[in-house]
Amino acid sequence: MNAAADPALAVPDDAAVPAESEATVIANPAPAGRWGHRHLLDVDVLSESDLDLVMRTADTMAGVLARPIPKVPTLRGWGITILFYEASTRTRVSFEVAAKNLSADVVNIAAASSSVSKGESLIDTVRTIEALGARMLVMRHATSGAPYLAAEHFSGSVLNGGDGWHAHPTQALLDLYTLRARLPGGSVRGKKIVILGDVLHSRVARSNLWSLTAAGADVWVCGPSTLLRGFETWSRAGVAGSRGFTVTSDLRAALRDADAVMALRIQRERMASGLLPSLREYAARFGLTRERLALAKPDALVMHPGPMNEGVEIAPDVASGAQSVIEDQVANGVAVRMALLYLLAGARE
Amino acid sequence: MNAAADPALAVPDDAAVPAESEATVIANPAPAGRWGHRHLLDVDVLSESDLDLVMRTADTMAGVLARPIPKVPTLRGWGITILFYEASTRTRVSFEVAAKNLSADVVNIAAASSSVSKGESLIDTVRTIEALGARMLVMRHATSGAPYLAAEHFSGSVLNGGDGWHAHPTQALLDLYTLRARLPGGSVRGKKIVILGDVLHSRVARSNLWSLTAAGADVWVCGPSTLLRGFETWSRAGVAGSRGFTVTSDLRAALRDADAVMALRIQRERMASGLLPSLREYAARFGLTRERLALAKPDALVMHPGPMNEGVEIAPDVASGAQSVIEDQVANGVAVRMALLYLLAGARE
Amino acid sequence: MNAAADPALAVPDDAAVPAESEATVIANPAPAGRWGHRHLLDVDVLSESDLDLVMRTADTMAGVLARPIPKVPTLRGWGITILFYEASTRTRVSFEVAAKNLSADVVNIAAASSSVSKGESLIDTVRTIEALGARMLVMRHATSGAPYLAAEHFSGSVLNGGDGWHAHPTQALLDLYTLRARLPGGSVRGKKIVILGDVLHSRVARSNLWSLTAAGADVWVCGPSTLLRGFETWSRAGVAGSRGFTVTSDLRAALRDADAVMALRIQRERMASGLLPSLREYAARFGLTRERLALAKPDALVMHPGPMNEGVEIAPDVASGAQSVIEDQVANGVAVRMALLYLLAGARE
Repeated sequence: MNAAADPALAVPDDAAVPAESEATVIANPAPAGRWGHRHLLDVDVLSESDLDLVMRTADTMAGVLARPIPKVPTLRGWGITILFYEASTRTRVSFEVAAKNLSADVVNIAAASSSVSKGESLIDTVRTIEALGARMLVMRHATSGAPYLAAEHFSGSVLNGGDGWHAHPTQALLDLYTLRARLPGGSVRGKKIVILGDVLHSRVARSNLWSLTAAGADVWVCGPSTLLRGFETWSRAGVAGSRGFTVTSDLRAALRDADAVMALRIQRERMASGLLPSLREYAARFGLTRERLALAKPDALVMHPGPMNEGVEIAPDVASGAQSVIEDQVANGVAVRMALLYLLAGARE
Repeated sequence: MNAAADPALAVPDDAAVPAESEATVIANPAPAGRWGHRHLLDVDVLSESDLDLVMRTADTMAGVLARPIPKVPTLRGWGITILFYEASTRTRVSFEVAAKNLSADVVNIAAASSSVSKGESLIDTVRTIEALGARMLVMRHATSGAPYLAAEHFSGSVLNGGDGWHAHPTQALLDLYTLRARLPGGSVRGKKIVILGDVLHSRVARSNLWSLTAAGADVWVCGPSTLLRGFETWSRAGVAGSRGFTVTSDLRAALRDADAVMALRIQRERMASGLLPSLREYAARFGLTRERLALAKPDALVMHPGPMNEGVEIAPDVASGAQSVIEDQVANGVAVRMALLYLLAGARE
Repeated sequence: MNAAADPALAVPDDAAVPAESEATVIANPAPAGRWGHRHLLDVDVLSESDLDLVMRTADTMAGVLARPIPKVPTLRGWGITILFYEASTRTRVSFEVAAKNLSADVVNIAAASSSVSKGESLIDTVRTIEALGARMLVMRHATSGAPYLAAEHFSGSVLNGGDGWHAHPTQALLDLYTLRARLPGGSVRGKKIVILGDVLHSRVARSNLWSLTAAGADVWVCGPSTLLRGFETWSRAGVAGSRGFTVTSDLRAALRDADAVMALRIQRERMASGLLPSLREYAARFGLTRERLALAKPDALVMHPGPMNEGVEIAPDVASGAQSVIEDQVANGVAVRMALLYLLAGARE
């Protein structure tokens, strides 16, 4: 068989996708001053107008998701590799679904952190993934900063799916999207948002502090003082050197008149470190119960990044109660990740 | 880039699929009295006319599989999640291939049972999978009844891929399809079908008892008496309170003039429980050998749900002999699962 | 719902793909004397003209990869199963990307070697994979010869993705492609190619010896004498009984005026066997450093099949230096595997 003369190989592309619409997406550069980021490593570099653009693009994607067939051909032929060094179901699947909804070709690699004991190996892995044809790399790694190292050696776009205690930017953006969608007025500006729990070890808390303060929220972080270490200092300096937030171990003060409460997952392995009392004591002192939630505004939103330890950081009736938007967070995560893949793809062209 | 104005996002759908044919499938409700089930949790609720409908739909799907390109766009854009809490190759892959042949988007999740120690967590997982966009959930779980719990919390369709000792409905349906395709007369009515082996722990045996008796077969279950516990009582009561079957440890009586023999997999871990003698003794007393098969009708069919312990419950020359339809079972499994996904999708619309 | 009358099932195929181009690929038999192999088990059976055909077809595929959307519909509807009994990232993903670029439907199965302790089980697995609809099977197995056994029981095409110490044919072919693409003159004929390291345990070395000598290269294998056992005898007999190569533990003699140096991965588990000194001593005596590379021709190519132990068999500055074509090897691997899937598919029709 002569491949060069084979008409099936000679066609410019799967005729299924109208060449014009593909061309429009891919040839259409991001307007100057709109989206200028090649990677998504954290939310700290996103301006308020960047955040707005992500939110509005996610609105469009939510419209796609509401169609009978929630797929668009936007990223057809784009190789996207999802490289997770830590176990995950919801974040990994959310990225996979988002990428497939945009018609990208997804490769999953579940790597054991242990096999990447040296930085060189991560670099080698990233270069190999690029050589295999990936144009976007979604990665999760136990080491803070690993996606930054990857971004230095990858010519496409790197999306941070969580790195150590450092950052989880797509979680922060889907949280922001959910808050805007559900809060009265459609904005977090001036709203009291409480992040409750093991703030110290939480990349979710750190990324949310950046995005929520950038969007003008009144952010409170609350938990046992051992799990707030360093945040007092940061709050005095301000996020980005200017945007203040409140740090407290006084749960009642934190919850009073809150517009939204975000409970963080308690990692059982923290017990061993001596930073936490028993789970039972944690639940007794800081668990988000219906009684405590009553201190917040009547329609205050209840959020959780998942997976939940029901009965520890959050009571089951609160998790599944009328104020809970936890499933909204998951559903919005797909729309927000579609928006980010779309914007990053546009910025690349 | 302005997503809202982007023509690639504005197209109603991938133009590849003619909108009419998609619409036909999705808008066409199941005729009243035809297929009225939202989930497939077991075969116990399927009437004989339901079984007929599955069989005829599987015939159509077998026709699709015989095409050079065995794919149809029927479930394009449908998210199907395959959540297996027990290791599996053939069942998991069979569902994956069936779903992909219908152009669905498949997400695989291999979960360790250990991480779902509480019922709440399974519910949380199921709700998350739905929020991520899945419209169908195929699940296997070590706990009997787990798919029923899942179905209560999932707004799409749940397909049971095997739960504990309880049920394995798609296996029973592919067995029925295989029997009808290969038995003289194209029906199991009045035919003597022997289920041989570790009946006690077998979800395959339980589901087959429901479907085979519903279709009018003369079913015999046979094995060491320790592995038949409770089935005497059930046979006296009758399946669905009326449909009798025969229970015996007399292998010769069971095999005599049988039309088909279904050998069950012996789980090696049963040895420890004291319910089984050694594998060698089991093979000597109950293994399906060529000599024993000679007691059945000359063209009696040999079946096995796989994977086989050749030389234990079935002799290698029987497994690969002329009477074996074991590979037919595997191939038919894809057609039957395509039929079920198709019917359940229709019932949803 | 009546599946037989459903227009979405009645269409001959996804209308997305022009029927003519599909038909051309699939109906077009390989011209006599061109590509006559049903399987790719090793390179030993490939003639020089076979090698040329693979190389030219890979050129065409490299052209596909250079398109904005690197996909063709050639293998649409073909089921390809990737069955790996040994852990792998780059080879597994390379096959997956290659198959998806040709629009095939890919199923991944990661099998633990332990579950296939008997030959019968491998046969059973292979027959099951075929019954599930796979037309091509890519497999890696720790046992030399396992893909040959599989090929006896699979009616489609088997591609060996590495078997024990025996063969890794796609690696050898991508190495040949890379050498032809980067060596002056575009040919390996008469060029001095050094394979350096643990030759004894290397399927990469064995397959390269076949293909490189068939293509007329002057091949040298070099390493500690304990890791060259048996190769002296083979070199005297000649590959295919006639094609000589050179075996030496004299690193300087091997590297002098070389056109390309291929460093092999040192398996840490070889230490225990007593065949290797410490990693440190290996690196000191046989590691490919910048100083040693200076013995070769000024533009000598540096190759490695990956993954690398940087600082052991290859120094980091050599691995990422100007002479390194290691990332080319990875990228070319996708094109070469696309070519092989394409040729094997053509041979089947």
